[in-house]
Amino acid sequence: VDRVISIDEMRLHARRRLPRAVFDAIDGGAGDELTMRDNRDAFRRIRLRPRALADVSQRDVSTTVLGVPISMPLMLAPCGMARMADSGAEISAAKAAVRAGTIFAVSGAASYSLEEVASVGPNALWYQLYLPPNRADAEQLVGAAARANYRVLCVTVDSPVAPKRERDFRNGLTIPLRVSAKMLLAGVSKPGWTRDFLFGRLGRSDEFGFYRSWSGYQRLATTISGFMPVTMDDIHWLRDRWHGKLVVKGVQRGDECRALTDAGVDGLVVSNHGGRNLDGARASIDVLPEVVAAADGRAEVFVDGGIRRGADVLKALALGARACLVGRPYMYGLAAAGESGVDQVLRIFSNEIDNAAALLGCSRIQDLEASFIDVETRTEPLRHSG
Amino acid sequence: VDRVISIDEMRLHARRRLPRAVFDAIDGGAGDELTMRDNRDAFRRIRLRPRALADVSQRDVSTTVLGVPISMPLMLAPCGMARMADSGAEISAAKAAVRAGTIFAVSGAASYSLEEVASVGPNALWYQLYLPPNRADAEQLVGAAARANYRVLCVTVDSPVAPKRERDFRNGLTIPLRVSAKMLLAGVSKPGWTRDFLFGRLGRSDEFGFYRSWSGYQRLATTISGFMPVTMDDIHWLRDRWHGKLVVKGVQRGDECRALTDAGVDGLVVSNHGGRNLDGARASIDVLPEVVAAADGRAEVFVDGGIRRGADVLKALALGARACLVGRPYMYGLAAAGESGVDQVLRIFSNEIDNAAALLGCSRIQDLEASFIDVETRTEPLRHSG
Amino acid sequence: VDRVISIDEMRLHARRRLPRAVFDAIDGGAGDELTMRDNRDAFRRIRLRPRALADVSQRDVSTTVLGVPISMPLMLAPCGMARMADSGAEISAAKAAVRAGTIFAVSGAASYSLEEVASVGPNALWYQLYLPPNRADAEQLVGAAARANYRVLCVTVDSPVAPKRERDFRNGLTIPLRVSAKMLLAGVSKPGWTRDFLFGRLGRSDEFGFYRSWSGYQRLATTISGFMPVTMDDIHWLRDRWHGKLVVKGVQRGDECRALTDAGVDGLVVSNHGGRNLDGARASIDVLPEVVAAADGRAEVFVDGGIRRGADVLKALALGARACLVGRPYMYGLAAAGESGVDQVLRIFSNEIDNAAALLGCSRIQDLEASFIDVETRTEPLRHSG
Amino acid sequence: VDRVISIDEMRLHARRRLPRAVFDAIDGGAGDELTMRDNRDAFRRIRLRPRALADVSQRDVSTTVLGVPISMPLMLAPCGMARMADSGAEISAAKAAVRAGTIFAVSGAASYSLEEVASVGPNALWYQLYLPPNRADAEQLVGAAARANYRVLCVTVDSPVAPKRERDFRNGLTIPLRVSAKMLLAGVSKPGWTRDFLFGRLGRSDEFGFYRSWSGYQRLATTISGFMPVTMDDIHWLRDRWHGKLVVKGVQRGDECRALTDAGVDGLVVSNHGGRNLDGARASIDVLPEVVAAADGRAEVFVDGGIRRGADVLKALALGARACLVGRPYMYGLAAAGESGVDQVLRIFSNEIDNAAALLGCSRIQDLEASFIDVETRTEPLRHSG
Repeated sequence: VDRVISIDEMRLHARRRLPRAVFDAIDGGAGDELTMRDNRDAFRRIRLRPRALADVSQRDVSTTVLGVPISMPLMLAPCGMARMADSGAEISAAKAAVRAGTIFAVSGAASYSLEEVASVGPNALWYQLYLPPNRADAEQLVGAAARANYRVLCVTVDSPVAPKRERDFRNGLTIPLRVSAKMLLAGVSKPGWTRDFLFGRLGRSDEFGFYRSWSGYQRLATTISGFMPVTMDDIHWLRDRWHGKLVVKGVQRGDECRALTDAGVDGLVVSNHGGRNLDGARASIDVLPEVVAAADGRAEVFVDGGIRRGADVLKALALGARACLVGRPYMYGLAAAGESGVDQVLRIFSNEIDNAAALLGCSRIQDLEASFIDVETRTEPLRHSG
Repeated sequence: VDRVISIDEMRLHARRRLPRAVFDAIDGGAGDELTMRDNRDAFRRIRLRPRALADVSQRDVSTTVLGVPISMPLMLAPCGMARMADSGAEISAAKAAVRAGTIFAVSGAASYSLEEVASVGPNALWYQLYLPPNRADAEQLVGAAARANYRVLCVTVDSPVAPKRERDFRNGLTIPLRVSAKMLLAGVSKPGWTRDFLFGRLGRSDEFGFYRSWSGYQRLATTISGFMPVTMDDIHWLRDRWHGKLVVKGVQRGDECRALTDAGVDGLVVSNHGGRNLDGARASIDVLPEVVAAADGRAEVFVDGGIRRGADVLKALALGARACLVGRPYMYGLAAAGESGVDQVLRIFSNEIDNAAALLGCSRIQDLEASFIDVETRTEPLRHSG
Repeated sequence: VDRVISIDEMRLHARRRLPRAVFDAIDGGAGDELTMRDNRDAFRRIRLRPRALADVSQRDVSTTVLGVPISMPLMLAPCGMARMADSGAEISAAKAAVRAGTIFAVSGAASYSLEEVASVGPNALWYQLYLPPNRADAEQLVGAAARANYRVLCVTVDSPVAPKRERDFRNGLTIPLRVSAKMLLAGVSKPGWTRDFLFGRLGRSDEFGFYRSWSGYQRLATTISGFMPVTMDDIHWLRDRWHGKLVVKGVQRGDECRALTDAGVDGLVVSNHGGRNLDGARASIDVLPEVVAAADGRAEVFVDGGIRRGADVLKALALGARACLVGRPYMYGLAAAGESGVDQVLRIFSNEIDNAAALLGCSRIQDLEASFIDVETRTEPLRHSG
Repeated sequence: VDRVISIDEMRLHARRRLPRAVFDAIDGGAGDELTMRDNRDAFRRIRLRPRALADVSQRDVSTTVLGVPISMPLMLAPCGMARMADSGAEISAAKAAVRAGTIFAVSGAASYSLEEVASVGPNALWYQLYLPPNRADAEQLVGAAARANYRVLCVTVDSPVAPKRERDFRNGLTIPLRVSAKMLLAGVSKPGWTRDFLFGRLGRSDEFGFYRSWSGYQRLATTISGFMPVTMDDIHWLRDRWHGKLVVKGVQRGDECRALTDAGVDGLVVSNHGGRNLDGARASIDVLPEVVAAADGRAEVFVDGGIRRGADVLKALALGARACLVGRPYMYGLAAAGESGVDQVLRIFSNEIDNAAALLGCSRIQDLEASFIDVETRTEPLRHSG
């Protein structure tokens, strides 16, 4: 896995190691996967304008995120289902992030408890909250995160209802995974994954039956995943109770930002949930500029969705993002080789960010601004690697 | 069929059950099928701009169409040839529409008589008129529709002559279907369809010979299908005789709308006949905005063509449509599994409309307006599923 | 061949009947064939805006070209090498054109003498001139055309040098065709063509050796095909000597038109020689508007290149063309079935022009104007049928 | 090889003769090869506007570059690794360039010493400098170039660090090539290349071990290839020491040009290193106009990247370039057939430039200006020949 050279190649390794249903649950998106693909194509539509004569012999790609220094402007996004990819799950991802000097955002649907993950090193962690419908439950959850010393609470606001991820439905996926006869059969050809899934370290796990219809799947998914609308009232309620930094994830319009910054939100994540929720939504990098303009310096702006190359990170920064988050890339690493797979993914990004910054003629990533990119020229869409 | 998750999947089921010639007659379009494909691609070029912080815990996707309440902003468009897909034909479609709480528009070229279909429940029905060339015939037909208690008359104005549907010509299709040796042979591999076609409930049926040349086909098609220009004179004549709501279907330019609303037309359907008439015409969703502007609130505006997802319906509403109509989708359902296939198609749409509205942050579909979409960003064209 | 329904289908018939080298000589273009493909794609980028409420029960698609009435706004363009496709060559094409009530432009590189072709019916003929370098030769040629009663002289100005048609070079094509061992071998699988080529009626024919290098091919081609620059001096010289109508073919810029109309030129053909000369040149339909504007009504403007459908003809007329010319389409017909193939091609166009005009809501093609089209909306490029 | 008709065809010959790893090292680019492909697609997006009535019977495609007359506006760009393609390497390329009457730019990473190459004929040579980090080394190198009578020094400024060329890494390529067991095995099927590589004339050669990780590769590549940032200070330093013409290669923004021309730089090469350095950078032809504007006549502007046809050269000249450089095209020629392959590549370009100029209606290439092109119309992207 140390010789894996790109995120796309890591994806192929993950695909080889995982049963189809599990790979699809990580790799897939909602509906026709238009937004999922466009997330990536949109980055490709943006061209770079390198400065040839910059002195880039000394380079610095470190930055700070909400006051916390990180080694590069890239963090690990919250992803549920990590236990499906590898039994190390959030623990492995957190360790790799700490080792690389960056931040890991723990999913509210993590396999390990928030306390277990926090033990890896809370300074480098965000806690991502799916707001429970019941205020008492919410208060308890927020309190637990505070007690575990999480300094950043990240509330996801783009998941009011369960989305339509058709690959999962076709694969008969249950959340969390239950071992069915079909699975066992599939496992025969994927022995590495099967062994780890059956006998690896176990995270917290609930039991669910199969669903046999789409609406059944939705009811179920809603119950277990806490899909729930989050309103401004909820943001105010949270702001009153949470004394650390507050980040709102899932912003896709500039005109909602003012109310959020007025409410004391510290960070905004431009995200369409990796194209996994509303198919047809704009690519996140296409949304970024209007959110940056609306935030007007009163909140740090982050972005996820479609980032597969170091140059993508630089494009986001040139458009005003403070840092990027990636989800699928580290899940591929986790699936391909556990903790060392995540290490390699972070190494690839770190290497590519530094390399692209140098070739772009930018010795400090803070210097990135709009003149480094060209959003007008058109290019062909990506032919996806399959 | 209850597990069919999308319209595209239903299409594949229909293709499996139908003889090629019948499937093509439903699935195909005119000429090079440019407009047919563009109908769909044009929806994909429109992106959604979800509001993250809306309270969508209570949602309402019902609306009214010309004063009649319907459960969702989607109706079944008039389609000829339904008897080819399934012997239940218009009766099955009407029952499914009634059950789903929406409207079915009976084709003027239906297999069952307008009285038979009306017996299902006239409140939920439109009668689509191909205006007979002879005023006496026209008067008789309009009178029959009134006596059968249809409340909406929908006159189609985009079919002055028989179009060039090349798949039909290549397949040697006759309208209505006649059982030829070739058909019987094809039927061997499609026993389900063959049995139903030969022994299923029979709608009204006329006999026609084969055509052996393109111009012969055209003469024939003109005779049987009532292809005929409709002019403003005809609209005035109809308006004088029809005391229910009057809808004109097939509008493709804004500059024709004023005369129609001045003439007392209640509704306009933006339609290029699903790309089945003039190949090269604009995608219907691209035409919608100029018709909405021209109607200026004096008529309700509907649209059909290329709608395969709930999100497509929301895009149309955000651009000013009152509701959408779908043709091929329910024909696929009818072909795949008769009445229950249409039920499932309506369930899919209802589910997707509700789901997309929630994810879009829109709790009442009446609130949809232009800020929910972005028509500028470009995406790649659809690769059709074959 | 009477059942062939489209030009694309006729092309497949031609491909089946011809040896590869001959088919390629007709079907191919210069360089990477970018312009050849774009000629067609550009028509597809133009959308139609049908009027729904026009009375099209009576339709008239006839027009006049330089004062001569023709049955439809489509003529047969001058094509060299017709003898390769079928021994009837120009005689067959001329007869078919006369029968269809339209005009055939005889190539200056025709297989039959201009007198032989003229005997078919000079009113329906143009003579296309490749201007000989020598004034005496030119004078003789112009005189011969006048004596043969041609009423329109069409001088081609886009062929100053031999172009780079790579398929021809790769196929070892000689002009005119010489029977080589390789050809005889290829002929075994194409007996219909071989018999006609060897024993069919013979047109005028010169003998040339094979060429073995690209520059040798060019020298040869220049010699035989009269590739030669044509300047304004030549146009003035011709205008002084030719007392019929004078047409200049190969205009690709508006800023050259004023000098031509001032010089008394009666017609301008916007053409890039079907993408067979300068690869990379604009699609001819993209050039048309600026030439129409520059001609300013002082000359009739025609266009060729990429026209495969009746709707393409209507698009050209809506942009200001008086009529269109087609080359490959009738060459396909000629290759597929000789004279009756050309008949069928003309029937297809006539039928499609009438059909599309009706569906477009245009009862007289003279009424076509810019509001019938939309040049802005983008569509996907054509996937060529191979 | 004399019958090879296009650069694309020469590429196929090269692919046939070279081991995969060597071919990829020449043919490939950085990252996802987006910029590499876009270099070529961007030329295709530019259309030509031929003048039909120009007198092109006498044509002159010669020009001067920094005062030196050349037979056509095309030069050979500096390429490292030429010894991998053929043992004749820079000597063969230089001889072919001299024979064709144009200029060859010797790579700073050439296999032969700068003195050996200079012996071919210094008037027709540029020396391309990778600036050594150490001033003493730099001074020595510049002095050697001067003593060898190079009249133009071309300093490359787009290679501050080793780029990420993934094909090379996957192929386990070492620079320079070392014969491994795998290579020997690959050589069995490529005997022509293997014989030449093992027993052909040997250029200067250093020994390196294999690299086993990406960062190892980078360290190595940096050491051997002299990847190093070049700043304005370096340019001033060079300008003071070099008394010939000074060219800066790798400019990709207009706003860097003023400082360069103020510093006395004589020529600017717009280049993204053939898409081999920063993937995502703009196509070089898309950058050209802003550099031409910024140079404002104070320096000659050249361009490389994506030039495969004579018409591409004319497009660049119409946009203000003085001449073009090509890299891969002559490397393909060298790989396919050594010196005579380069001869043929230059013949192809010369022929195509003359041919396209004639068809464009431009008898002197100095007359090319913006009216000969159209950059607005869009075309489909190239489908690469594999």
